Amino acid sequence: MSQDIYDKIMMLAKRRGFIYPSFEIYGGVAGFYDYGPLGSQLKLNIENLWRKFYLLKDNCIEIITPTITLLEVLKASGHVDEFTDFTVDCKKCKQSYKVEEIIDEKTSIEEAIKKGKVKCPTCGANLKDAYQVNLMFSTKIGVGNTRDAFLRPETAQGIFTNFHLLYRYGREKLPLGVIQVGRGYRNEVSPRQGIIRLREFSMAEAEVFFDPKDKTHPNFKDVKDKVLYLFDNKKEMKLPLEKAVNTKVVNNQALAYYMYLTQEFLMTAGVDPKKFRFRKHGDDDLAHYATECWDAELFSERFGWIECVGIADRSAYDLNAHIQSSGTDMYALRKFDKPKTVEIKKIVPNMGALGPLFKGKAGKIKAILENMEVKNTKKISVNIDGETIEIPKNCYEIIQKKEKVTGEKFVPHVIEPSYGIDRILYCILEHNYHEGKKKGEEYRILKFNPLIAPIKVGVLPLISDEKLIKIANQIDRDLREAGIKTYYDDGGSIGRRYARMDEVGTPFCITVDHDTLKDKSVTIRDRDTTKQIRKKIEDVISYIKDKIVF
Amino acid sequence: MSQDIYDKIMMLAKRRGFIYPSFEIYGGVAGFYDYGPLGSQLKLNIENLWRKFYLLKDNCIEIITPTITLLEVLKASGHVDEFTDFTVDCKKCKQSYKVEEIIDEKTSIEEAIKKGKVKCPTCGANLKDAYQVNLMFSTKIGVGNTRDAFLRPETAQGIFTNFHLLYRYGREKLPLGVIQVGRGYRNEVSPRQGIIRLREFSMAEAEVFFDPKDKTHPNFKDVKDKVLYLFDNKKEMKLPLEKAVNTKVVNNQALAYYMYLTQEFLMTAGVDPKKFRFRKHGDDDLAHYATECWDAELFSERFGWIECVGIADRSAYDLNAHIQSSGTDMYALRKFDKPKTVEIKKIVPNMGALGPLFKGKAGKIKAILENMEVKNTKKISVNIDGETIEIPKNCYEIIQKKEKVTGEKFVPHVIEPSYGIDRILYCILEHNYHEGKKKGEEYRILKFNPLIAPIKVGVLPLISDEKLIKIANQIDRDLREAGIKTYYDDGGSIGRRYARMDEVGTPFCITVDHDTLKDKSVTIRDRDTTKQIRKKIEDVISYIKDKIVF
Repeated sequence: MSQDIYDKIMMLAKRRGFIYPSFEIYGGVAGFYDYGPLGSQLKLNIENLWRKFYLLKDNCIEIITPTITLLEVLKASGHVDEFTDFTVDCKKCKQSYKVEEIIDEKTSIEEAIKKGKVKCPTCGANLKDAYQVNLMFSTKIGVGNTRDAFLRPETAQGIFTNFHLLYRYGREKLPLGVIQVGRGYRNEVSPRQGIIRLREFSMAEAEVFFDPKDKTHPNFKDVKDKVLYLFDNKKEMKLPLEKAVNTKVVNNQALAYYMYLTQEFLMTAGVDPKKFRFRKHGDDDLAHYATECWDAELFSERFGWIECVGIADRSAYDLNAHIQSSGTDMYALRKFDKPKTVEIKKIVPNMGALGPLFKGKAGKIKAILENMEVKNTKKISVNIDGETIEIPKNCYEIIQKKEKVTGEKFVPHVIEPSYGIDRILYCILEHNYHEGKKKGEEYRILKFNPLIAPIKVGVLPLISDEKLIKIANQIDRDLREAGIKTYYDDGGSIGRRYARMDEVGTPFCITVDHDTLKDKSVTIRDRDTTKQIRKKIEDVISYIKDKIVF
Repeated sequence: MSQDIYDKIMMLAKRRGFIYPSFEIYGGVAGFYDYGPLGSQLKLNIENLWRKFYLLKDNCIEIITPTITLLEVLKASGHVDEFTDFTVDCKKCKQSYKVEEIIDEKTSIEEAIKKGKVKCPTCGANLKDAYQVNLMFSTKIGVGNTRDAFLRPETAQGIFTNFHLLYRYGREKLPLGVIQVGRGYRNEVSPRQGIIRLREFSMAEAEVFFDPKDKTHPNFKDVKDKVLYLFDNKKEMKLPLEKAVNTKVVNNQALAYYMYLTQEFLMTAGVDPKKFRFRKHGDDDLAHYATECWDAELFSERFGWIECVGIADRSAYDLNAHIQSSGTDMYALRKFDKPKTVEIKKIVPNMGALGPLFKGKAGKIKAILENMEVKNTKKISVNIDGETIEIPKNCYEIIQKKEKVTGEKFVPHVIEPSYGIDRILYCILEHNYHEGKKKGEEYRILKFNPLIAPIKVGVLPLISDEKLIKIANQIDRDLREAGIKTYYDDGGSIGRRYARMDEVGTPFCITVDHDTLKDKSVTIRDRDTTKQIRKKIEDVISYIKDKIVF
């Protein structure tokens, strides 16, 4: 079988130190990969470029929360009940399969299961009894008296559960953007797409909180005439942001703004514009928390269009869920121009009745009741740990009173750009891979943007002469001291060394030759043009820094 | 009860957005903390400063591997059997305790258990039946046919299991330094020391591979006269590196070099030199894999001397374990000056006999046998998945032959500097915390080194005048575009705003005043001296960059 581009890239990735299969010496496991010496730097550079867009340009704040997440959080967020895949087991092969992956594309999952149309891809047996499997890795905290927990399926919940603290940090202003970069986990039933479908992956997520009455963005005006690459599942369109919003192709400014930020980030990171589009989710493929979602898709010759970023309007879904489940005041305040006196209904809990009836849960119920908006005075119920409990009338009183209020409380809406870093990294490898022949030999170049290239400079003494080596070593050291990642190489012909650097995408090579001894200058070769210029050694650092600093 | 410094710092940390207890809205769980908007940047800055020392200065390579780790890896490394704590349960309180934490310091664990001297710290009951509890979080990969796995107790195993690939990447030269920065997990029985004892923590580890016959370091000569702060459990000593090695206080150059690198890193990060020392482990408190270990300890007013970095000589322990368990060739080669002809013994496996006898395991056994050094020809046994299997004589032949060899194979030794980032971060908070009164009000300053300060510059219009605000906004934006983290603040008196910035350790404040409109200059205030200088707006970025770039 001839190799396709995925095979070629994964072979180069392993041979040169970008990506290794995890636990390979023990047989490996699908869905896990390691980043080698070059992959790690590529990944960190992509993440830091992303931070440049979100943390600096967009002025978001960043938080870091544990990967182990309490059951209570993920029960409230809906993941315990909804983060599932339909699965079937083959009794013959002893393998399990995700139904979606083994039926043909035109059939819906429901239909396939109902009609018994599911066949084992290995042995052809008819498969029955599909069931829902939760895709979270589960574990237990502590010894003896343990608490149930999961590895987080997304970094977002760590942000939502801190919203009240972050809102205060941001001095109670909206929009408020909060980011998190880190691992996410999804215990796939049978992942079969290499690095595209991982069980442990890296995400970069932003949760941007808005007043639902005002989904405008302060920076929108600066980019309103830029063009978005859109695909509405029927046709491709290139629309200026403002037009996309005005014609309701994209629901609001905030969504459109983060779509553009995403597009700009991906292009800067080295995505091929011809292999990029935003695709709108149909109502049937929205996640359980989303009201509108656009995916940034990148084209791969092996996999077709791959979802690499999801930009979703999660509305008030998550904050509402955590307010209801925890009783915490996670509202934002919309200030009035001047204070108003209003008539409000409030619940006054009666602990004398609540206590004996609900014991350990009484305190939590009290907190939830006190923060509850009273809509229906006939029946009051609360949600605790996924259970809905109706509260008997004798446990509370509803009072009506006049209060001077400075504003009205509301639950913010969330726009969430969520990036799959590993998929983006793979697509950048694929989009920047070039091959050909040079003097009869295979020649490969990874044309990375210098901003994200894992090694910035190869430092090469022209020949193995101690005098040249000494200077080259000093230049190598000085560059590293200045924060520039280098690779020193004095082995083999200069042509072969250039080729090795081209193959891993190093944008510049510095060659120390005999003239260097006289003129204290070196040659700097550009990877893509192969042109060489001569520079004084003392000017090298600033010349390189100019091209690689964000 | 009066607050000690830990209480004060944790209150400031929560109020200002450094550290939040995780899952607090659901009651929280001991051993988990979140980093807020300021804590996240402090942490990332510390990690990046660490990379500056290891990745750039020491020219290590970096890898990134999954947190979920296969049972096989941790069985081989000894963690499944050895990574345990003696634990007792109280039947009355239904709590579990780590024995070490509830006995007095002079008693050994063995003695306490034997003599039944263990009392419940809550109810005073006599506790019996101590047992070993493994401290790894366990989980399962997949559905149906699952595989057992754990969350990694250290990042190091991801490096060891890739050694053969990394050695090739490094062009088969030693020393070879490999780093990993990421999460580690330890399911503590009953963690009761706040952020000092976490169940999920951040580590930065370096595994530096050496030829056991040559534990020198190429950079040792540059630092041999620098002074190490040592404590051998009896007295404190200040010794130059060379002397420490020559007098065998520190076993070898490599250990001493990484101790100095650690010391230099910690001082640069802002550790108080008076609250720093290296303590040597006694034989009884060495980890199961270590032959010599020095801890970098930092002093905390609440906790006393805290182990923040361990610098261990792991010898060939881990690589040997993985060679034996996986059969992979993970040897390094010590090249001869010229090839030699030697007589060697080799095992030739007989698959005809191995196959029927060992079925699925036969292939693995074959690989192990082929790579095995033949020491004892009478009895050959292999280790598979923790099981020792004796191989019957009819399954192999031992042949003796002459071979031309270019060098001899050996298993490299490992020097491991392992850093606990969270503990270092806490100690940096404590060592840089200053308090006092200013105009009758409490005044707090965090005197962070500008290199690691979470916010580099506060941007403040002197008064709420649209013209000043416009300029301040532009400066704020330009600084962020240049990669400098800022905080824009136009609320309250200028004194109060300075105080807010001092309290979170922001080294510089830029004030835009009415003169700015005329002279296009601003005032830059220094946090520690409170001195102000005047700078042209166009020079601000380079002035600040000079002080904050590594």
